[in-house]
Amino acid sequence: MASVVELKASRASAKAVGETRFSRRRASIITSAAQVFGRKGFHGATLDEIAARLDVTKASLYYYFSTKEELLYEVHLLSMQGVIKGLEHARATFDSPVEQLQEAVRSHIQVLADDYEGAFLLQQEYELPDAFRAEIVRLRDRYEHMLLDIIQEGVRKRLFRVKDARIVARMILGAVNWFVRWYRRDGRLTADEIADAYTDAILYGLLVTSKADAPVVSARVLTPASKAAARRRRGAPINGGRG
Amino acid sequence: MASVVELKASRASAKAVGETRFSRRRASIITSAAQVFGRKGFHGATLDEIAARLDVTKASLYYYFSTKEELLYEVHLLSMQGVIKGLEHARATFDSPVEQLQEAVRSHIQVLADDYEGAFLLQQEYELPDAFRAEIVRLRDRYEHMLLDIIQEGVRKRLFRVKDARIVARMILGAVNWFVRWYRRDGRLTADEIADAYTDAILYGLLVTSKADAPVVSARVLTPASKAAARRRRGAPINGGRG
Repeated sequence: MASVVELKASRASAKAVGETRFSRRRASIITSAAQVFGRKGFHGATLDEIAARLDVTKASLYYYFSTKEELLYEVHLLSMQGVIKGLEHARATFDSPVEQLQEAVRSHIQVLADDYEGAFLLQQEYELPDAFRAEIVRLRDRYEHMLLDIIQEGVRKRLFRVKDARIVARMILGAVNWFVRWYRRDGRLTADEIADAYTDAILYGLLVTSKADAPVVSARVLTPASKAAARRRRGAPINGGRG
Repeated sequence: MASVVELKASRASAKAVGETRFSRRRASIITSAAQVFGRKGFHGATLDEIAARLDVTKASLYYYFSTKEELLYEVHLLSMQGVIKGLEHARATFDSPVEQLQEAVRSHIQVLADDYEGAFLLQQEYELPDAFRAEIVRLRDRYEHMLLDIIQEGVRKRLFRVKDARIVARMILGAVNWFVRWYRRDGRLTADEIADAYTDAILYGLLVTSKADAPVVSARVLTPASKAAARRRRGAPINGGRG
């Protein structure tokens, strides 16, 4: 199996000789693969079927990809690059962490909705060989960290109040990633309308009760005494001192 | 392959002859299977390995289960029954939808944290043969509906304000299901502390801004005119008229 580095090198040289056609062709194969994986599962999908959808032979696929695992990696990579690009755009476009978070959620949902039916493969990275998986996990960690940065900046600017920024970042990631499990293109709402309902709930919460009842500082700077006071104010159960 | 009904019948007769030992043994096999599936993936796992962990022969497994698919089904079933039981308990114990929702989230996270390492298999129902999958999907729909009921009751009682109750129910399910993707038993926080950070964010939202700025009624009863007014009040982007 070629390493990620070798694959990158082979792609770099392919780029030099005819980037546009090669890239376009590769992209259409990745899209087709994602759709077949999405319907059949990684193990149920065959290269024959992926080739048939594109009206090419299986042999011609091997010019672009060596293995089914490499295709799965590319499907992951395309989604990860899409959501990272969206988040970078959100940070570059807006000053406020509030708008950055709104835009990040909207863009993440749009990438998953647009790109292909098979986007839920994002959640099957354990099928990947080690070198590929390490690269995807690295990108995912980077993405999570960027999202965490937005939340932490919001806390520093006293725009956000969270009990634990890391947990909340993962909670939001779970909420948006799960979207691909139930979204249908012909459903009741557009991806943008769904994103709007998401960001509303994430920013404002479900409770009608004024946020003035909740502690206004991050749990990070709560002392045990202020925590106990917060607990009394909130009337909500809270466990242990590690929150 | 035995149908779900036949399997239920065979289990009913097994129960009659010696429920405790049979059930205990089955439960320990399901737990072992979940752990092996969790580490190796469904396709990577073998019945040999599952048997070896229990220090029994593969042949003796067949007294309890016919196929690997049946074991995967049982792993799903155990989790689904666990979260449904937790939600029913939440509804029976608390009057307020606020506390019901808090307890439902806490209990869901606890089931996933407690039961076994392989709980993320909950998300691999597409590997199941049709009859098994239909049963799991039926239970999942029932669970989602119960969660939706709590949210809708909260909206009716003017305790909750959401843009779209169905979307918010799925968002919460995604957030809690994703938990198994990153939770580690030896991690920084206990499952209860994580649940506490989740419910805090779900109920209060991230924004420090008072909820008084947000519209206090459900999107379900907003007219186009009041929607436009809400949009101006919120200053948040909103798309289309279907939200």
